[in-house]
Amino acid sequence: MSQVRVGLLGIGTVGSGVWRVLQRNADEIARRAGRPIEIVAVADRNVERAQEIVGREAIERGVVVTAEAAAVVARPDVEIVVELIGGTSAAKALVKAAIAAGKHVVTANKALLAEHGGEIFAAAQERGVMVGFEAAVAGGIPIIKALREGLAANRIEWVAGIINGTTNYILTQMQMRGIPFAEALREAQALGYAEADPTLDVEGIDAAHKATLLASLAFGVPIQFERAYVEGISAVEARDIAYADALGYRVKLLAVARRRADGFELRVHPTLIPKEHLLANVNGAMNAVVVKGDAVGQTLYYGAGAGSEPTASAVIADLVEVARLMNATPSQRVPHLAFQPGELVTLPVLPIGACRTSFYLRLQVADEVGVLAQLARVLADEGVSIAAVIQKEDGVAEKGIAELVLLTHESEERRVRSAIARIEQQVWVRGRWAALRVEHLQ
Amino acid sequence: MSQVRVGLLGIGTVGSGVWRVLQRNADEIARRAGRPIEIVAVADRNVERAQEIVGREAIERGVVVTAEAAAVVARPDVEIVVELIGGTSAAKALVKAAIAAGKHVVTANKALLAEHGGEIFAAAQERGVMVGFEAAVAGGIPIIKALREGLAANRIEWVAGIINGTTNYILTQMQMRGIPFAEALREAQALGYAEADPTLDVEGIDAAHKATLLASLAFGVPIQFERAYVEGISAVEARDIAYADALGYRVKLLAVARRRADGFELRVHPTLIPKEHLLANVNGAMNAVVVKGDAVGQTLYYGAGAGSEPTASAVIADLVEVARLMNATPSQRVPHLAFQPGELVTLPVLPIGACRTSFYLRLQVADEVGVLAQLARVLADEGVSIAAVIQKEDGVAEKGIAELVLLTHESEERRVRSAIARIEQQVWVRGRWAALRVEHLQ
Repeated sequence: MSQVRVGLLGIGTVGSGVWRVLQRNADEIARRAGRPIEIVAVADRNVERAQEIVGREAIERGVVVTAEAAAVVARPDVEIVVELIGGTSAAKALVKAAIAAGKHVVTANKALLAEHGGEIFAAAQERGVMVGFEAAVAGGIPIIKALREGLAANRIEWVAGIINGTTNYILTQMQMRGIPFAEALREAQALGYAEADPTLDVEGIDAAHKATLLASLAFGVPIQFERAYVEGISAVEARDIAYADALGYRVKLLAVARRRADGFELRVHPTLIPKEHLLANVNGAMNAVVVKGDAVGQTLYYGAGAGSEPTASAVIADLVEVARLMNATPSQRVPHLAFQPGELVTLPVLPIGACRTSFYLRLQVADEVGVLAQLARVLADEGVSIAAVIQKEDGVAEKGIAELVLLTHESEERRVRSAIARIEQQVWVRGRWAALRVEHLQ
Repeated sequence: MSQVRVGLLGIGTVGSGVWRVLQRNADEIARRAGRPIEIVAVADRNVERAQEIVGREAIERGVVVTAEAAAVVARPDVEIVVELIGGTSAAKALVKAAIAAGKHVVTANKALLAEHGGEIFAAAQERGVMVGFEAAVAGGIPIIKALREGLAANRIEWVAGIINGTTNYILTQMQMRGIPFAEALREAQALGYAEADPTLDVEGIDAAHKATLLASLAFGVPIQFERAYVEGISAVEARDIAYADALGYRVKLLAVARRRADGFELRVHPTLIPKEHLLANVNGAMNAVVVKGDAVGQTLYYGAGAGSEPTASAVIADLVEVARLMNATPSQRVPHLAFQPGELVTLPVLPIGACRTSFYLRLQVADEVGVLAQLARVLADEGVSIAAVIQKEDGVAEKGIAELVLLTHESEERRVRSAIARIEQQVWVRGRWAALRVEHLQ
């Protein structure tokens, strides 16, 4: 069969990985796909660097290198457009132009899909083209394929994942070496694990983009990033990680999508996870996603969530799939959001106050008889029961002050918040709070 | 679109799970598949039990329940045959009859495919039908989909997995409670984790069936179960698990398929794995598979490897896929063995002596000066170098005898065996050996 012709937009970290792996494994990939996959045109703002990566030999063989992404999209010989330029403005216009021209698209752009996925998938559906986005969530881990196809028998109950490598690297360093967030962040930046402006990663936005897509695939609901609850790791203190350790937990930036009777939870926040769970043992920049299905139980998917070739692995898997199904009818393809386009349901995203978790609470109190009893009473009044308590006098600077660490049983978040508000008014409260959610993943 | 009609052969543990999940999640599955999937006929030797599972309501609606599997295969309204009767004789005839009749097949039968897969896939290819077998390896974990599609960009370097729940349950109990193999096996039998005749599981044959299929998908080679090296766990002693623990390892029944320059290794045996690796933390009856690809690095897939509904989850995922692609052309479907049928290569399976691992060796020696030096010299003569040594006097019954535990660096197995043969002739050797392979999974 004839070759499949691809136009590559962006040949930076991921794009150069796609180029390299497609060259290196060309034979192996063609043996699988049944036909060669060839990049015929590359667009990048930095044409000189792009030419260097593509190489003289390929350019002489006819591969076009240009600064004009729109020109690559418009080329009549390009059948699939791979969008790896990132961002949500230029990328959106290019992806929509490709779809309008009847071309299939493969993208790693989670921000684009989390914010404009509904519109993009609708356009693709109407035009009869595929939009592959395996690389948009958890890099090289084929989690989208698992959710859309591998677990198609299941009613998915929840998905929980460590899906941002930067924050997992930082939290792992904080945990293993007891260093504060700011120091771990600086190191991560020096090592290239965090960007100069780390906001998207550190504040949980990148993880929320991905969680939004996972929730949509899991429950058959429209993409609604704007409703996600997002809390980053910049406020996590090393001592909370140490207390969590003493209680049998690790602290991870966890993305959770959980189905409830009246809607679903969609939230990203630092979370205590029991040490025995495999997810608690996912360290460094690695990613992992756990899916709980009603038939299969828990399955876990682990691997590199970012990086040049791991992400390229997912991009190329999509290219192989598009190559196989580009001439199939739409009903022979897997629906973009796992469920048939007419079959999405409007299950609402629950506000964070209606979400249910256990809580880890740390506060400083006057070291007096009866304080713990009063604290427990306020929590009990709100229907929040205590699962464990640690009381510490050492490590607190001032005399006469004790540090209390509590684990609660699961309850509605609004009840915990209401209890916290009431406790803050007590005369025996000193210093600042920490409140972290706990997931037992059972 | 119209419903897809399925004939179910065997409604035991897995079959009843398939029936139950298809009923319970009918709406959710149809929302994904775009059309309902309905079992129209069920064959089982125990017709009475089958009728009970299917239920009066379904039988009144027209679902046929019979003892005649061949009659279900022959029914004109059956488009897909699900084979869940197991074994390799009747099942083979039925699967081949279904294929000959132009029907698609979904099976969980690893023994059948490991022993006759080449013939079955060739027949299916010729007749233009699909044979889905996601359920044949690691139960509900979509590992076949991951290998065939999700990692299609990669040159797979190795696959290593805990793919037999019975043996993992037994080894976990031995490790956590220090009990001997025979006791752990009896308990596993009492709890239903092991069969009355546990040979297939305990001696590694079931794991080798699955490993054979994984190797084929990973490397694009023909299925060749008869060349696999298989060693079970019945000779593993509790004290070796304890020594391994002291050295930083867990003992698992590991299935390994590893590509080498001149062939590939295909072996199942008890194996020391570093505790820090996620695979070492897969406990109880759970399964996990690690795949090392040249682009993606290591990815891991974890979940229930057996059981009624977990296995049904994989069977139904195949049904959804067949429903989607049954009217597609063969080139639009994923090749059975991941690579196009004409593209399998004849990479040989290496004999066990040519395989490379580290070794854990335990032996009893006379407690005399110079013994360790002599032992090290024999190993060195064979090119085997020592990575770690533990010497124990306590725990050995007789006086004047010491127990030595060695870890070697990686070497060819034939060199280690040759060293062992020479050491056995030394006058200072006492008692019996234990020799276990070590995989660092790096």
